[in-house]
Amino acid sequence: MNLKDLVYKTRSYRRFEESHHIDIKTLEELVDLARMSASAANRQPLKYLLYNTTEFCDKVFPSIAWAAYLKEWEGPHKGERPSAYIIILGDKSITESFSVDHGIAAQSIMLGATEAGIGGCMIASIKREALRKDLNLPEKYEILLILALGKPAEKIVVDEIKDNDVKYWRDKNDNHHVPKRTLDELIIKA
Amino acid sequence: MNLKDLVYKTRSYRRFEESHHIDIKTLEELVDLARMSASAANRQPLKYLLYNTTEFCDKVFPSIAWAAYLKEWEGPHKGERPSAYIIILGDKSITESFSVDHGIAAQSIMLGATEAGIGGCMIASIKREALRKDLNLPEKYEILLILALGKPAEKIVVDEIKDNDVKYWRDKNDNHHVPKRTLDELIIKA
Repeated sequence: MNLKDLVYKTRSYRRFEESHHIDIKTLEELVDLARMSASAANRQPLKYLLYNTTEFCDKVFPSIAWAAYLKEWEGPHKGERPSAYIIILGDKSITESFSVDHGIAAQSIMLGATEAGIGGCMIASIKREALRKDLNLPEKYEILLILALGKPAEKIVVDEIKDNDVKYWRDKNDNHHVPKRTLDELIIKA
Repeated sequence: MNLKDLVYKTRSYRRFEESHHIDIKTLEELVDLARMSASAANRQPLKYLLYNTTEFCDKVFPSIAWAAYLKEWEGPHKGERPSAYIIILGDKSITESFSVDHGIAAQSIMLGATEAGIGGCMIASIKREALRKDLNLPEKYEILLILALGKPAEKIVVDEIKDNDVKYWRDKNDNHHVPKRTLDELIIKA
């Protein structure tokens, strides 16, 4: 797949076939993509937790705030939850400043997930102290992002933005619509 | 090219064939990859400045701090400088919080650059106020990242990290070496 197709196919999925197992080797290969991506001053301060079992996925799930714009929806119900997670941590023993390293890393991972036939969502809205406790995570790690992964079980439609309204929404067939700004709006003419 | 090859080939290049022209359409296609990448709460607050002329490249170049670890090197000399730039701005009229959107966007762009046969470097060490003045940039835009682009004219070698030393360096043949942490070091065992 060329990169444009890969990027266009990489949507933020929040409902999955939970029974679909993702093996650890796949997760490790995704982290390898992040490992070989750029890092500010080449410090490489990111660390990764990989989970693909019900036991651990059940520990991560309650700490995630899902889809802020969908007020009626409390997140994926049992059966459509992610079947794996990659948690991106910042190792404060290396630096206290992670710049946008986790954004760079997360994009490599999510593109890799699409290529591997899975999908997911980058989540920054996290109950961090609860998760730290549930995972027994040492203080030296800052919880930066959760990447929820699984086999997507929802259709996502990209729409052109109207009236500057960026809120995603679901139609009566339960398809998820995402308004995107046009290229013209993003490029400032010199 | 599969994504792994693309990611591995996407190194941070700082010396280029400056005579190699990059057309605006190529830069626009790269921004389109960023446009279709994830954005926190789908706010899409990033804007882009595209430069591919000597006149504007000469305005951007002096505001960049090049390669902090190469103390003896003041940056690429005339003839090996970038022939294009994409400057990523945060539009503060949309939000004051850009999260890691610019990291996500920058990675999409740099992967796209590799696929298009060019390369470059993400730069966050910027003389921001000087650049704002030189470009006559309104206060509502925050300067987030400069992506320097061109046809690479240096060889980059990825080495396994030794003694936890992350500093890149150049060998006597002027090849640029980048120490990378191993996958084992990055993955925390549950």
